[in-house]
Amino acid sequence: MKTVRVNLGKDSYEIYIGQDLFQQAARHFTESRSASRILLLSNPTVFDFYGDQFLSCFREFHEDVTCFLIPDGEKYKSLETVENIYTYLIAQRVDRKAALVALGGGVTGDVAGFVAATYLRGISYVQVPTTLLAQVDSSVGGKTGVNHRLGKNLIGAFYQPRAVYIDPDTLSTLPQKEYESGLYEVVKYGLIYDAEFFDFFEANLETIKRRDPEILEVVVSRSCEIKAEVISLDEREEDLRRILNFGHTFAHALETCVRYQGITHGAAVGYGMIAASLLSKHQKLLSEEQCSRVIRVIQKIGTLPRLQKISFEGLYDVMQHDKKAEQGQLVFILLAGIGKTRMQSGIDKSLLRDVWSQTQEQTALVW
Amino acid sequence: MKTVRVNLGKDSYEIYIGQDLFQQAARHFTESRSASRILLLSNPTVFDFYGDQFLSCFREFHEDVTCFLIPDGEKYKSLETVENIYTYLIAQRVDRKAALVALGGGVTGDVAGFVAATYLRGISYVQVPTTLLAQVDSSVGGKTGVNHRLGKNLIGAFYQPRAVYIDPDTLSTLPQKEYESGLYEVVKYGLIYDAEFFDFFEANLETIKRRDPEILEVVVSRSCEIKAEVISLDEREEDLRRILNFGHTFAHALETCVRYQGITHGAAVGYGMIAASLLSKHQKLLSEEQCSRVIRVIQKIGTLPRLQKISFEGLYDVMQHDKKAEQGQLVFILLAGIGKTRMQSGIDKSLLRDVWSQTQEQTALVW
Repeated sequence: MKTVRVNLGKDSYEIYIGQDLFQQAARHFTESRSASRILLLSNPTVFDFYGDQFLSCFREFHEDVTCFLIPDGEKYKSLETVENIYTYLIAQRVDRKAALVALGGGVTGDVAGFVAATYLRGISYVQVPTTLLAQVDSSVGGKTGVNHRLGKNLIGAFYQPRAVYIDPDTLSTLPQKEYESGLYEVVKYGLIYDAEFFDFFEANLETIKRRDPEILEVVVSRSCEIKAEVISLDEREEDLRRILNFGHTFAHALETCVRYQGITHGAAVGYGMIAASLLSKHQKLLSEEQCSRVIRVIQKIGTLPRLQKISFEGLYDVMQHDKKAEQGQLVFILLAGIGKTRMQSGIDKSLLRDVWSQTQEQTALVW
Repeated sequence: MKTVRVNLGKDSYEIYIGQDLFQQAARHFTESRSASRILLLSNPTVFDFYGDQFLSCFREFHEDVTCFLIPDGEKYKSLETVENIYTYLIAQRVDRKAALVALGGGVTGDVAGFVAATYLRGISYVQVPTTLLAQVDSSVGGKTGVNHRLGKNLIGAFYQPRAVYIDPDTLSTLPQKEYESGLYEVVKYGLIYDAEFFDFFEANLETIKRRDPEILEVVVSRSCEIKAEVISLDEREEDLRRILNFGHTFAHALETCVRYQGITHGAAVGYGMIAASLLSKHQKLLSEEQCSRVIRVIQKIGTLPRLQKISFEGLYDVMQHDKKAEQGQLVFILLAGIGKTRMQSGIDKSLLRDVWSQTQEQTALVW
C-alpha cells in the first residue's frame, strides 16, 4: 500500500492506494470515533460489482449503514439529485456526526462531496473512487459540485474529504473507453510536472494498458502525488493549480460543442493536449521533436473518437466563455519542454485556428 | 466609525459600523482591484428605501453593477431562489472575479452567502445588513444557507464575507417587531459573555429602544465584537461557538411548532432565554435574584407575542430532532451567573416540562 499526504493545513488528509482497501475504509471512522452513522452513496453499476462486499465491510464496524444510489450518467450530476439526497438524509434524520462515503466514479464523488459540503453546513466524507479518472483526478483536491443546465460544474464548493481510499483492482471492471479516459489525465501529470514520470509512462504503456495491478499502483499513486503537491501549494486555484488545466481549455470547448456526446472527458483532454502542444511548439516553448513525441504517446493511449463536424468559430466562442477565462481573457497552459509549463494569454484567434486545424490532421477527427 | 476584526486566519475580515457606509462599501472592491463586476442582491422592501442611493454609490466606482431582487419573506430562503440566482448569474456570464453584495436582512444575507459559496465553487461577497438581527447575528460568522421544506437552515455552508458594512441608520426604517427581534439577540451577548454589557443594556434600554444612532453604534459594535470573538475561537461550531445558541433550543422548537407564524426569531429566543434561565436557576447555576433580573430585562424589550396552544409533548419532540442534538442527546446552554455559560446534557424531560410551564407563567403565552 502507498500513502500520499495532501497538505492543506487543518484540512489535510491521506490518500491510500493499494489492494483490499474496503475494510480499511470501513475502519476509518471507527478508529477516530467520529461518525455516528454511515451513508453510502454509490451508483447502480458500481454497486452491482462491489456493493455487497463493501457493505459487509462497513457493517462489520458500524451498526448503522444505509445506502443511496445515484442513477448512472452525467445528467444525474444535478441539483435535482442533490435535493433528492438532502431529502433522504433529512427523512433519515441524519445528524452532523454522520459521514458520507462515496463509492463510484466522478459523478458519485462530485455529488457526494457537494452534499457533504452543504448538508447541515458540512459533514465528513470519504472518497472511494472506482474509475481511473476519479482515482487520479476528481477524488483528489476537494473540488465538488454539480452541473447547471446552462453549463458543467458551475455549481460547487471546495470541500476536502477526510481520506481517499483507492483500490486499483476496481479498475478491472472498468469499460475500456473509461479506462483510457483516465490514462489521458495520467499522462498529463508527466507532461506538466514530471518528465521522468512521462518517460516511465511512455516506456510502460503496454503494461499499463493491460491494467497490471502492480504498475497501476505506481501510476495512480504518482498521479495523486503530483496532484496533491500542486493543490497543497494552491488549494483554491489562484495560480499554480491552473497547470492542472493543461489541455482543458480546448477540451471543455470540444465537449460543449459535441454536447458531451461520443467523447469521454479524457479523450477530449487528449485532443486538448495535442492542440496545446502544437501551440507550445508554435510559441517556441517546445521543440519540434518533443512535440512529436508528446503527440505520439497521446495517440498510443487509444484511438481518439471521430467527431462530427465542428466549426472553429463555434469552438472559439465556447472557449471565450470558459469559466476560467478572466474578464474575457483566455489563458492557455503551455509546455515549456516536457514536465514544465508556462501560462500565456493574448494568443491570436488566427493562431488558435491554425493550431486547431493541425490538431485535426494529427487525429482521427473527421470534418 | 468602529471596526471589529473577525480573526479566521486567511479568511479574516473586518466589520465596519458607522454612518454613511454605503460609499465605503462601494469602494471595497475598487481599492483591492479584486472584482470585475458587482452583483447586488437585495429585496424589494429594502431596495425601495435604499436602492437608489446604494446603486449610485456603487456606480461611482464600478462600471458594471447589476441587481437581483429576492422576494420578501422567509419562504424565499430556498434552493429554488438559489437556482434562480445561479441561472441569472450564468445568463449574465458572471465570472469568478465578480463579487456579490448583499443588501438586506437575514434572508438576503443567507441566500447571497450561499450563492457566493457555491457559484463557480466560490466567489467574493460583502454583507451590508439592514436589520438589527442581521447586523448583530446572521451577517457575522459566515453561516450561509437556505431552508429545506422539511426544516430550516438544513442546507448551507460556512463561507466568510470579505467585509461587513453596517450602517445603524438603516434601522430607522425597520418595523418595530423586527427591531425588537434583534434586541433579544443583543441582550443574549451580555448574558452569555459580558456582564458589563448586560448592565449597560439594562441601564440604557429606553435610549436603545428609541433607536438613538449613537447608542446603536455602541450596541451593534459590542454585539459584533462578542460574536466575532467567539467564532474566531471556533469557526465551525465545534464547542465554544455553541454558547451563541443560548435560548435557541427552546426557540427553534417553538418556531417549528407555530410554523414560524406570529413570532419573530428574536421573540422566540426571548422565550427560550427565559426558559433557559429558569433551567439554570433550577440547576443552582443562577441565583433566584439574577434569574428574576434576567427575565425582567427580557420582558422589557417588548411584549412577547401571544401564541396558540402548543403541547409540551409537541415541543419536546421537535427539540429532540434539533440539528444540534447529538445522537439524540439534547444539549442545553445554561447561565452560570450573568456573563457565563455552562453546557449541560441529560436533563430530565419532566424538568423541562416544569420549566416550560413556568416560562408560560412568566410570559404572555396563552395556552
